[in-house]
Amino acid sequence: MEKIKKYHRVDPNSYTLGSFPTYELLESKPELVKKVIYSPEYEGTEKLLAFTKKLGVPCFEEPQSIRRISDKGNVYVAALFQKPEREALKSDTHVLLVNPSDMGNLGTIIRTAAGMGGCDIAMISPCADLYDPRTVRASMGALFRIRTAVYPSLEEYRKCYSEYALYPFMLKGSVELGKLAEAKKKRTLVFGNEATGLPDEYAAYGQSVRIPMSSLVDSYNLAISVGIGLYAFNNMK
Amino acid sequence: MEKIKKYHRVDPNSYTLGSFPTYELLESKPELVKKVIYSPEYEGTEKLLAFTKKLGVPCFEEPQSIRRISDKGNVYVAALFQKPEREALKSDTHVLLVNPSDMGNLGTIIRTAAGMGGCDIAMISPCADLYDPRTVRASMGALFRIRTAVYPSLEEYRKCYSEYALYPFMLKGSVELGKLAEAKKKRTLVFGNEATGLPDEYAAYGQSVRIPMSSLVDSYNLAISVGIGLYAFNNMK
Repeated sequence: MEKIKKYHRVDPNSYTLGSFPTYELLESKPELVKKVIYSPEYEGTEKLLAFTKKLGVPCFEEPQSIRRISDKGNVYVAALFQKPEREALKSDTHVLLVNPSDMGNLGTIIRTAAGMGGCDIAMISPCADLYDPRTVRASMGALFRIRTAVYPSLEEYRKCYSEYALYPFMLKGSVELGKLAEAKKKRTLVFGNEATGLPDEYAAYGQSVRIPMSSLVDSYNLAISVGIGLYAFNNMK
Repeated sequence: MEKIKKYHRVDPNSYTLGSFPTYELLESKPELVKKVIYSPEYEGTEKLLAFTKKLGVPCFEEPQSIRRISDKGNVYVAALFQKPEREALKSDTHVLLVNPSDMGNLGTIIRTAAGMGGCDIAMISPCADLYDPRTVRASMGALFRIRTAVYPSLEEYRKCYSEYALYPFMLKGSVELGKLAEAKKKRTLVFGNEATGLPDEYAAYGQSVRIPMSSLVDSYNLAISVGIGLYAFNNMK
């Protein structure tokens, strides 16, 4: 049996922390789960034991292991899971994140993309860790509901998905979102890093877009921009 | 001179932590600032001293005070400010948050509302603290750019703004956002608590609205919902 130790990015396994993402994982990708653990304070033990038994997943009371992997005190159930193999992206709309650095933002973006019709997510490295327990938690387990992939460069991404039209979101994008009446069916909404946005050269890679913004702020939060972008493109022809 | 101590919600003063929100405060509401402090590691001392001198705001090197008020180590400049008097809201679109609990979400919502044309924000208590340094920081200082107010109940809010039409955002809202072709000019977009959403009775208080959502998630993050709602209503007649 796998030993439960604190997560590091290079590990082949990671954890869901808390009841909601643990159930999301068990329901959507039970084949990845190596073990579910809980503490005596957990109130849903009976249901959890029945569900894991049905799935054939080992489930034990291990309060010390829970303490070892959770930073905060309010975690009573967790699952050890194997990081999945990389899959090809499939959805008609992709979200491409260039060097995102914040795991909370990344998790929120994953949850939003899953809600917006199950859009797959690609990232250009270096980037925040998709499988860090904090990303998984911020995604509310939605990470297991969509496809994700990481590429070393934009060129590598475009080689795999040359039929996708790029729409870079930039502060100085040439068309205001909302004025764009239609978009290609296969499309990639591209967003830059939280602090720096997209490099200028991205304007040449496709139809650059700007979200309407007053002079009272310098930028929007990255996850907010992705949410607005996905909503607006989903409402186009 | 005011003694610099750790923030508590009942205090008449609060802090901006970090360069960005401190400058936002100095630029938009210098009359609220009692004192600016910095540590020897701060790289913008010269500019800061010149700017505060011009504004007539006291500014001192006080590394111990900085350490006392910041939880994280990476704060090099801060401002002590007096919480402003409550103002009447003025913008045509209001965001009304019913019992929001997360300061990070609240700060992100403030930043988004400022970007979306400077929409004012009302809250129904109990609610997250507008002036907690963590809210101020998540707002990137945009808190000082819009009007905000807290009411003890929906009734009290409606007494003050009876001419505003309410649009409650609910999972079972009767009209899908995007299908709504027009809206009243004076309008209030209403959002519930992060975990529970709005109570069912809110559907009767106005035209309830739902954001399109796939079956892959149970809900959207609150700040994402507000961002999408403001963007969509700004694009209506």
